[in-house]
Amino acid sequence: MSSSVVSTPAGAVRQTSLREINLALLLGRIAAAPRPPSRADLAADTGLTRATVSAVVDDLIGGGLVTEVDPTPRARAGRPARGLLLAGHGPAGLGLEVNVDYLAACVLDLAGAVRHRTVRRVDLRLLSPGETLGLVAELAARARADADDQGLTLAGAALAVPGLVGAGGVVRLAPNLGWREVDVPALLATRPPLTEAVPGLPALVVDNEANLAALGELHAGRAGVTDFLYISGEVGIGAGIVLDGTLYRGGRGWSGEIGHLPVHPEGRPCRCGGRGCLEQYAGQEAIIGAAGLGGDDLPAHAARLHRLADEGDPATLAALAEAGTALGVAVAGVVNLLDLDTVVLGGGYAPLARWLSPPVTAEVSRRVLTAAWAPVTIRPAVLGADAAAVGAAGSVVRRIIARPHAWLARCG
Amino acid sequence: MSSSVVSTPAGAVRQTSLREINLALLLGRIAAAPRPPSRADLAADTGLTRATVSAVVDDLIGGGLVTEVDPTPRARAGRPARGLLLAGHGPAGLGLEVNVDYLAACVLDLAGAVRHRTVRRVDLRLLSPGETLGLVAELAARARADADDQGLTLAGAALAVPGLVGAGGVVRLAPNLGWREVDVPALLATRPPLTEAVPGLPALVVDNEANLAALGELHAGRAGVTDFLYISGEVGIGAGIVLDGTLYRGGRGWSGEIGHLPVHPEGRPCRCGGRGCLEQYAGQEAIIGAAGLGGDDLPAHAARLHRLADEGDPATLAALAEAGTALGVAVAGVVNLLDLDTVVLGGGYAPLARWLSPPVTAEVSRRVLTAAWAPVTIRPAVLGADAAAVGAAGSVVRRIIARPHAWLARCG
Repeated sequence: MSSSVVSTPAGAVRQTSLREINLALLLGRIAAAPRPPSRADLAADTGLTRATVSAVVDDLIGGGLVTEVDPTPRARAGRPARGLLLAGHGPAGLGLEVNVDYLAACVLDLAGAVRHRTVRRVDLRLLSPGETLGLVAELAARARADADDQGLTLAGAALAVPGLVGAGGVVRLAPNLGWREVDVPALLATRPPLTEAVPGLPALVVDNEANLAALGELHAGRAGVTDFLYISGEVGIGAGIVLDGTLYRGGRGWSGEIGHLPVHPEGRPCRCGGRGCLEQYAGQEAIIGAAGLGGDDLPAHAARLHRLADEGDPATLAALAEAGTALGVAVAGVVNLLDLDTVVLGGGYAPLARWLSPPVTAEVSRRVLTAAWAPVTIRPAVLGADAAAVGAAGSVVRRIIARPHAWLARCG
Repeated sequence: MSSSVVSTPAGAVRQTSLREINLALLLGRIAAAPRPPSRADLAADTGLTRATVSAVVDDLIGGGLVTEVDPTPRARAGRPARGLLLAGHGPAGLGLEVNVDYLAACVLDLAGAVRHRTVRRVDLRLLSPGETLGLVAELAARARADADDQGLTLAGAALAVPGLVGAGGVVRLAPNLGWREVDVPALLATRPPLTEAVPGLPALVVDNEANLAALGELHAGRAGVTDFLYISGEVGIGAGIVLDGTLYRGGRGWSGEIGHLPVHPEGRPCRCGGRGCLEQYAGQEAIIGAAGLGGDDLPAHAARLHRLADEGDPATLAALAEAGTALGVAVAGVVNLLDLDTVVLGGGYAPLARWLSPPVTAEVSRRVLTAAWAPVTIRPAVLGADAAAVGAAGSVVRRIIARPHAWLARCG
């Protein structure tokens, strides 16, 4: 069999067979097609022979990656061809999120449908990293059982964390959780595996929550929007910067720390050691404090905030206006620097966007040099408050689709 | 003759001959080679035949783009081959800069050597755009005459401006000059042409000064540094963001407006209409005012600033420390956002870097989340205070090298 050298996601170069390339090529075309393509469509589209397409498609169907649908009846003569689409059974991706005051889990099937979703409110600052990851493992086990019940097999997991992630999934720093050099894979290794083991696919990828949420927004969001700033507003505030359809990770992988943009340079002290960071004025905790909801039970207060704003509570509205102004100052700086035309309010900001958008827009109009002729859209995230878990699951699904041979090899 | 479709810089697609491709290919290899390659080296390197290489090289030599040098004697037997390098005669690039308190002109030959350089200190806020561009045309005429005297032909010009440039070279906004919708090419069209007309090469490109200076730094700076923030500190403060060896221009071409990052959100009013912009604390005028040199004669004061700092004048040192701190607050925000490991202090900041770097470094260490394990280098620009004019000339030279057939066609 002919072979070719391709680059793996990890950057290594290895020999791979023509069959592997064709599996990935055809599955990618099926995933990207606006309507279920037929085998003939795929042959015409790729230049492969009908026989090759049929053999490869049979493998994809046999492995539970693709399913066939009956065509809508057509007026034209001849037997209409059956359409191919991503299977809603077979492999699925597990997305997990640790944030400061909640945990989330999500299962996406290959077609991108959410098949399981849990959010658990708990103040994780009171727990050790090991205890927190124990709760994560419990959520994952429940998600796996639910997936099994639906005939899905979890083929990998991604975990979103509100911090800076280094090599090997070690969380270098997550100031709001109080985590420093936490080796997540090592701590989880003592527990039952989160998912099925699929050689050739990573069992667990740990990534920054704003990055994963931004990727989720890129794939679930409006078509054609390929440049945007995604802001994840939790206790901490992170950002994912998407440029030309690609997540910009920075020179060393630690971009997007918008929460530590100084908005009042000698202002309130921050957990990072600096002063006047955006988080201290527009983070969930700051908003809750300014709204007069201060106290220890952060998760409960976060849930109350939206209701009070909806009821028009003056202190809550004032707190949101103040937070929105601080956020707008930071956003104006970013837009002046990067010239982005879309800013997405995500995470905890998504349900609050109604109140945050007007002051953000006001600061942008006032401070962005090009605002008069180059408008900036400020809008809530499509995926809502658990975008990071959904984005994490989506990243697993995209890896399966990019490497179908790994899944098929596991099947025998 | 065989032909192929290539994309022009403007994005259009046109038919081009194989000869054009080979001219550009070989000239590019000669430009990039660490040592002057021989014709045999080029044949081995490109896979073209010796005969083709020789014919193309003869054309390049005949057109004044390439010159041959005698080899250094070698111990090996046989006639040593002659080396090829970019010509120091023939076509050259004209770089021009309009800033707030000075004009600059620069001529670079193909080999990248500066062959002419003028800086004229004048407060351009007191002149109309037409008057300013009249002075630019005078500087250009002097540069052209000097180039002629040296046997060089100016084959195109680039003009750096401290503002936002739109389609067709129209300056949409340059707040510190008071320019708004200034059609630079139209205003210069009434004057004698700045350079020789070369069909296929643009006569004049207008671009942001920080962008051109950052490109100049990229090509003149330390090898291997492909990700950095270049800050041009004049009356206004602009930035060029270089990511992975490419200038990041933003979604609509207006990135880099670091001067309008709010460092004290409700602080001093700015010419942009906002408040508390970095420029108001770290721009040249702000430094001069804080040093007690206030007054109308901005260009003279800018020149005195460096001398006073050198003499240890306490008010000047305090002003530079204050400006450096404000600059550091903004830089810390940018590094938190983009995770860049190198910040270049350019333009008027280059000669002041000795005093500005320590407070910038202090703010970065204090405020950047990853500073403890991912150090950030703050250093002066390689090209110094007239980097934008040099960078502008370099951009013209790179266009000539990319399209040698345009120059050769002009020669007949």
